Amino acid sequence: IHISQLQADAVERGEFRHYMLKEIFEQPRALAETLEGRIHNDQVLEAAFGANAHQLLDEIYAVQIIACGTSYHAGLVARYWIESLAKLPCSVEIASEFRYRQPLPNPNALVVCISQSGETADTLAALHEAKRLGFGPSLAICNVPESALARAADMVLMTRAGPEIGVASTKAFTTQLLCLLMLTVVLGRRNGTISELEKVIVRSMRTLPEQLNKLLLLNDTIKRLAEKFADKHHTLFLGRGVHYPIAMEGALKLKEISYIHAEAYPAGELKHGPLALVDADMPVVAVAPNDSLQEKLKSNLEEVHARGGQLFIFANHRAIMQASSFVNVIELGEINEYISPIAYTIPLQLLAYHVALIRGTDVDKPRNLAKSVTVE
Amino acid sequence: IHISQLQADAVERGEFRHYMLKEIFEQPRALAETLEGRIHNDQVLEAAFGANAHQLLDEIYAVQIIACGTSYHAGLVARYWIESLAKLPCSVEIASEFRYRQPLPNPNALVVCISQSGETADTLAALHEAKRLGFGPSLAICNVPESALARAADMVLMTRAGPEIGVASTKAFTTQLLCLLMLTVVLGRRNGTISELEKVIVRSMRTLPEQLNKLLLLNDTIKRLAEKFADKHHTLFLGRGVHYPIAMEGALKLKEISYIHAEAYPAGELKHGPLALVDADMPVVAVAPNDSLQEKLKSNLEEVHARGGQLFIFANHRAIMQASSFVNVIELGEINEYISPIAYTIPLQLLAYHVALIRGTDVDKPRNLAKSVTVE
Repeated sequence: IHISQLQADAVERGEFRHYMLKEIFEQPRALAETLEGRIHNDQVLEAAFGANAHQLLDEIYAVQIIACGTSYHAGLVARYWIESLAKLPCSVEIASEFRYRQPLPNPNALVVCISQSGETADTLAALHEAKRLGFGPSLAICNVPESALARAADMVLMTRAGPEIGVASTKAFTTQLLCLLMLTVVLGRRNGTISELEKVIVRSMRTLPEQLNKLLLLNDTIKRLAEKFADKHHTLFLGRGVHYPIAMEGALKLKEISYIHAEAYPAGELKHGPLALVDADMPVVAVAPNDSLQEKLKSNLEEVHARGGQLFIFANHRAIMQASSFVNVIELGEINEYISPIAYTIPLQLLAYHVALIRGTDVDKPRNLAKSVTVE
Repeated sequence: IHISQLQADAVERGEFRHYMLKEIFEQPRALAETLEGRIHNDQVLEAAFGANAHQLLDEIYAVQIIACGTSYHAGLVARYWIESLAKLPCSVEIASEFRYRQPLPNPNALVVCISQSGETADTLAALHEAKRLGFGPSLAICNVPESALARAADMVLMTRAGPEIGVASTKAFTTQLLCLLMLTVVLGRRNGTISELEKVIVRSMRTLPEQLNKLLLLNDTIKRLAEKFADKHHTLFLGRGVHYPIAMEGALKLKEISYIHAEAYPAGELKHGPLALVDADMPVVAVAPNDSLQEKLKSNLEEVHARGGQLFIFANHRAIMQASSFVNVIELGEINEYISPIAYTIPLQLLAYHVALIRGTDVDKPRNLAKSVTVE
């Protein structure tokens, strides 16, 4: 009952061993395409959302995001952006939960539905349910122009990632994030909450292809690191704030293609349960950018360290923690805070890929999963 | 840096081998105490929330729940109740995330902070942050009258569970749920959304002690079932709707005291990733009451079954699925829908207890964890 909507034959793997690896390396180009014609003079163009966007975005005072799986993680990142930058209340919900619980409709809430294929059954049904209940206008963020979701929504912002063949989503996720950052800027400008910041954000968006090309150079480092995961059965992924959903996405990638049971937690919750699992057999991966939460996260990591857990810390600078045989630090370099969640995704995708390769799984077609979940 | 606030010596274990088991069996009495003097003529008394509640609950048009760990799961259940019965928008957030992300204040949102000890550092700090930002009046739901949280909040609803010694929270959780159901009724009455339903809900609350005594008779059945988990390293817990947070709580209990890596998913998300993990070594536990979502959940369980996963289904009736060596159905009997999340908690607590017992862990004091997390 799983039907993939994509024609794998139509796309070449070229020099890459797997579609997933090819798609990871396509991200600089995919993000550039996603920006193309949508920013001008350091501003995000409202017309990017369609000719009717100018009118439909009037009287939007809240945002309701609906999605599944990886797209849900993109929505969780957007919630932090929309609340902190555009200052609009934002709620994010898993489509299969939203559609059956009779949520309270808000006619001034923009309904944002995210799906790579645009055919995800639960997301599509949730959009129809939101319309029926009386929510505000809808925006589809998807990767297939002729998809059911693109046709059903009032506005569409295409991710332009190009065909994605690997079942584990990579370039669709990062282009979704970029679309959601563009949405945040437009909503913030309308709400009068970003002013001069718009320039800063747009300029940092423009640096994404170059930044990502640099991050892809970590491939060999991460390939070596992956060997330390080969015999493990569990992992914890930790993050805080806007990088917590990135930890969730990193865990999901590992779970999907390497079959290692990876679970993400907001680092502050560690002491409320999952710390009981930590021992030498349970590596802990941390998404630890040098933001205002880094010190808090560091103290969580020291708890893990004190209990014999192996740490894999992704950080801007090596200095975050003294490296040892139990503490591995992967240095990403300086990254602008607005694009940081997109940047930190890259090494986690590479980690999942190389661990799966070592474990000999079918990377592009992991067991039990389909590319598009077109049934409930 | 972990300090437990409770005096273990002050409480007798009596006939029970562990405090946790004693506390599980105390739940019928604890819930009766929680109701005592707070309902009258099939109505929940507003005065239960304090003399000032009548005034403070005026102009409440939304609810913001803040908590950590098990208390967070109670909050997630309450969100379903509050939105579906009281028809007020309700948001639930982990305290360590809420306090650092500068959430948008809503002066008409009741801030509900939940903590057994009333000393949880993040929850307490989040309450102060909510006040500072300009949220509405606050309500503490906790188990220790003289606690910092009880003193800091504008209103208090004590859970009256009695001292809880086991680190893994049991009776505190179910009494929190009952308090939150009482809150839902009061808010729904004020909002004019429950009318005749109040009687039905209050009457079903009254049946809780008797219902729970019946459910505790499952102890021997679950003790036998637990043997099937003894050699497992992973488990998935599935639920949908209001029972999804109950699956989360079941997974957390197992994780905390048996060190089995248990993770919960809303069943509709299974196909978006975790299904890749399912094989004969990954038992799947399902919270499957006979509500409107049961058929959907059943089709998710059939996916698991088809992929060789062992199922442990907690349901009202045995008929939900044909039992076999791979399909174990645990029958709970008829349960009123409003108290169903409380009822389904009981067998999951017993399951975690008996699995931990077989694995020989320190049930009352699991490694790395403290009873109250009084530091960040």
